[in-house]
Amino acid sequence: QVWSEQDYSDLKARLESCYPFSHYFRSGVIGSGLCVFSRFPILDTLLYQYSLNGYPYMLQHGDWFCGKSVGLVIIKISGIIFNVYVTHLHAEYSREKDAYLPHRLVQAWELAQFIRHTSKAADVVLLGGDLNMHPEDVGVRLLRGWAGLQDAFTEATRFEGCEGGCTLIPNNCFTVKSELLPFPLGIRIDYILYKAISSFTVKCEELKTTTGTAPGVDIPFSDHEAVMATLHIQRQGQAAGGHPGTTEPTLVDVVTEARTEVGMGLRAARRQRYSSGRMAVLALLLLLLQAAAALGTLAGLAAEQPFPKLSFSLLAFLAIGVLLLAAGLHLFHTMEVKMLQGTEEQLRLALRALQERL
Amino acid sequence: QVWSEQDYSDLKARLESCYPFSHYFRSGVIGSGLCVFSRFPILDTLLYQYSLNGYPYMLQHGDWFCGKSVGLVIIKISGIIFNVYVTHLHAEYSREKDAYLPHRLVQAWELAQFIRHTSKAADVVLLGGDLNMHPEDVGVRLLRGWAGLQDAFTEATRFEGCEGGCTLIPNNCFTVKSELLPFPLGIRIDYILYKAISSFTVKCEELKTTTGTAPGVDIPFSDHEAVMATLHIQRQGQAAGGHPGTTEPTLVDVVTEARTEVGMGLRAARRQRYSSGRMAVLALLLLLLQAAAALGTLAGLAAEQPFPKLSFSLLAFLAIGVLLLAAGLHLFHTMEVKMLQGTEEQLRLALRALQERL
Repeated sequence: QVWSEQDYSDLKARLESCYPFSHYFRSGVIGSGLCVFSRFPILDTLLYQYSLNGYPYMLQHGDWFCGKSVGLVIIKISGIIFNVYVTHLHAEYSREKDAYLPHRLVQAWELAQFIRHTSKAADVVLLGGDLNMHPEDVGVRLLRGWAGLQDAFTEATRFEGCEGGCTLIPNNCFTVKSELLPFPLGIRIDYILYKAISSFTVKCEELKTTTGTAPGVDIPFSDHEAVMATLHIQRQGQAAGGHPGTTEPTLVDVVTEARTEVGMGLRAARRQRYSSGRMAVLALLLLLLQAAAALGTLAGLAAEQPFPKLSFSLLAFLAIGVLLLAAGLHLFHTMEVKMLQGTEEQLRLALRALQERL
Repeated sequence: QVWSEQDYSDLKARLESCYPFSHYFRSGVIGSGLCVFSRFPILDTLLYQYSLNGYPYMLQHGDWFCGKSVGLVIIKISGIIFNVYVTHLHAEYSREKDAYLPHRLVQAWELAQFIRHTSKAADVVLLGGDLNMHPEDVGVRLLRGWAGLQDAFTEATRFEGCEGGCTLIPNNCFTVKSELLPFPLGIRIDYILYKAISSFTVKCEELKTTTGTAPGVDIPFSDHEAVMATLHIQRQGQAAGGHPGTTEPTLVDVVTEARTEVGMGLRAARRQRYSSGRMAVLALLLLLLQAAAALGTLAGLAAEQPFPKLSFSLLAFLAIGVLLLAAGLHLFHTMEVKMLQGTEEQLRLALRALQERL
């Protein structure tokens, strides 16, 4: 994640000799933070912005302002077409009360769908990114199962780096220690996933993570440990169809679980839409009441002024402020409801298709 | 375009006997308005929301609230895979001073890219939609050229309907007559475009538009005339590579023209970002000034109150209001700048790739 375009330019200048090709994906207010450096020419790119990504009013959780996305770059290496996807999903700020789980699940689903629909001419699919999910979380299982991806960490022949492949570790000086108390080793939230399409096989020979500080300095490379995979790609005689992936009965369970979570998010979003709508109506009523009172005073119905001018106008401004805010919230939660509904329906259709196949 | 989900449900119920399969694409506050009815099972769907779509504060132009998108449904008919795309691009409210042209061009580019990246396993690509562009506008040429699509109207062997294939006609009672004064026949802004991939050829045998009112009633079917195409699809012995499409030197001109327009939009967006930022800073200064004055009064530096309380607090509220509004605008135009920059860079890369090939 490179949040500033200036940082990207600096990196580009420094990496130019080894990685002459690069792409920076722009999105949102801050930027998606996504970029790719490559030793091989980038043939084409595409950016897909997730339809849900937290709330703009949660300023302390800046996710909404990044316009979280998945970026695709297409690279050809010795005649093999690689679709390389990079992404960053919504952060998890509290594991116990994870208000963003439905949004992250919508993102995982859209990511899986985007990969499936755009990778049909690829030989090899690679996905790298900070998924902000533990390896056994429903979102990771959904992504692996629905897009047929394999986890480089679990498949690796050799592994070197932080124990358990963790990338968010308590040793890192940028980590908030208290959040990692239940996980003394850290968490694995950054992944390299892959699959071979057509007549290729991919094997992960080695997976590495960085461990701690960069050479010669006191601070680590980043707030997460970096993940590096060495993959062995082989052309096969006949069409592959080899890798097992998630079996379909398991996939039914995963999709069902995801659908339940999205459904819970949908109910919460509907409640928020309702309460912000009610707030807007109340503020409007207050304004109308005030307008009536003011008109009454002007018309001389009340001999003397019933309220002091100052508090009267303060109240009116307050009502206007609340009205605008509540109306904005109402619009936002209406969108949220639509996108959650849409995803829930797609999960329902996917489930039906899976069950018909079984 | 079906803006209300209730209307979609009504249509679905009525069409169920002939078109048992359907999909409604949800997006934005109002909804994308996109839906598809089909005689054949829908195998899969994907929605892509355009990154730019007008301005939320242009309430009289409701485009932003729809979350304009392109929807993809995949259908298989006698073993042939159809990727059917439906879309609706940003409206043109003034042809002379078309403030939305850069946004519509970004949408046309994203549409072409989305089609290219998702149609690689398809045999036939169909695109239907209200593109809100005249046939020779740069956006239509970009879409045709970059995605390699052919226009069913120009390719049709037989045509029946409004003269020139117009779909927005002065006769329609929902049309604003004054807007069509320069175009007495109307405008063709709704299209069916297609291409054959792999070893298929597509020919448009017949194109029809509705003309005027629906049978038995006084009002037309919709505010635009509907377009219907009869396509003949043939499997070929060898791989196609047949249809001419736009020749590459012409495509260079089209991409250059689009890039110029997007560049002009970028400069306008930068100006708006700057002026909204300046406004926010001014409002903040005013607030700070007021806070200083209020503190001064409290500290007893001024023996008597320098301003009447009422106008003082009104001014403070006004400053807060302007600050919030200007900050919001600034954020929005920052996003706009990012997306226009991103598209301009992609067009530049596309241009370079085209020129290298020539």
